[in-house]
Amino acid sequence: MIVLGIDPGYALMGWSVVESDGSRMKLVNYGCIETKAGVPMPDRLRTLQLGIRDLLSIYKPDDVAFEELFFARNVTTALMVGAARGAAIIAAAEYTRNLYEYTPMQIKQAVTGYGKADKKQVQQMVKLLLKMDEIPKPDDAADAIACAITHCQAGAAREQFLMK
Amino acid sequence: MIVLGIDPGYALMGWSVVESDGSRMKLVNYGCIETKAGVPMPDRLRTLQLGIRDLLSIYKPDDVAFEELFFARNVTTALMVGAARGAAIIAAAEYTRNLYEYTPMQIKQAVTGYGKADKKQVQQMVKLLLKMDEIPKPDDAADAIACAITHCQAGAAREQFLMK
Repeated sequence: MIVLGIDPGYALMGWSVVESDGSRMKLVNYGCIETKAGVPMPDRLRTLQLGIRDLLSIYKPDDVAFEELFFARNVTTALMVGAARGAAIIAAAEYTRNLYEYTPMQIKQAVTGYGKADKKQVQQMVKLLLKMDEIPKPDDAADAIACAITHCQAGAAREQFLMK
Repeated sequence: MIVLGIDPGYALMGWSVVESDGSRMKLVNYGCIETKAGVPMPDRLRTLQLGIRDLLSIYKPDDVAFEELFFARNVTTALMVGAARGAAIIAAAEYTRNLYEYTPMQIKQAVTGYGKADKKQVQQMVKLLLKMDEIPKPDDAADAIACAITHCQAGAAREQFLMK
């Protein structure tokens, strides 16, 4: 099974591709789609949607796993992050119905065994689980990897995380 | 000039098509794109994006005018309304670079001459300006018409409302 993990963001949208055969996981690739401040907002949103579309057509994942957004500094920020997330969700929904969503706490729990682990602990476990030489950077990409790991480890329970 | 006016929303997205020759305005059509509660969110967002895409290909507007979102009840709502707005903006950005945005106050000012007019006053003026037999319904469609009128009346000043 190939999983595309996505950590939605407006300036930086983290992504990861993880392959799993049920017991072993392999990191195929990861990175960030970046949109620059100063570029008109409609173009930034299009860049995000087209970027996710490209990843889907390159890696042909079976499932797409999103990190759920729970908070934002304020309503204005939420409107923009919501739009960025929406752009990615629409691209994914064009491609498959297998869209899943995990809260930050579920991801921490799955990756470290502790729902309140800090960022550093999650990143160390990501490095360990996927036999990486270094901690993945930037944070947004690391989060997207952690999200894909969570989905791989969810096994039969994953149906309950289908995006509603 | 043909203008597509959009009042972004998640359950109801209002739209209008107004034609203007500089002095006279004509209402071509208006309505709402509706997405039902209970339908998975990715499908609702796709419906909105495809709906706007259809309107663009049917009416071939020169410009697209959005009512700006300023507030939301809370961050969760803002994430969803932001996604709905983003879906519409992306569809419009695929089609044209002529995307404009007006605040509710600018719209009230343009339509009634008074930036703090209430909904009823705006709707009465919309009816009058476009020689309609009745007040347009629902509110979301009426708002989208008011937004298109605002753009038609902005004249040379409209460049300052280009979406950034």
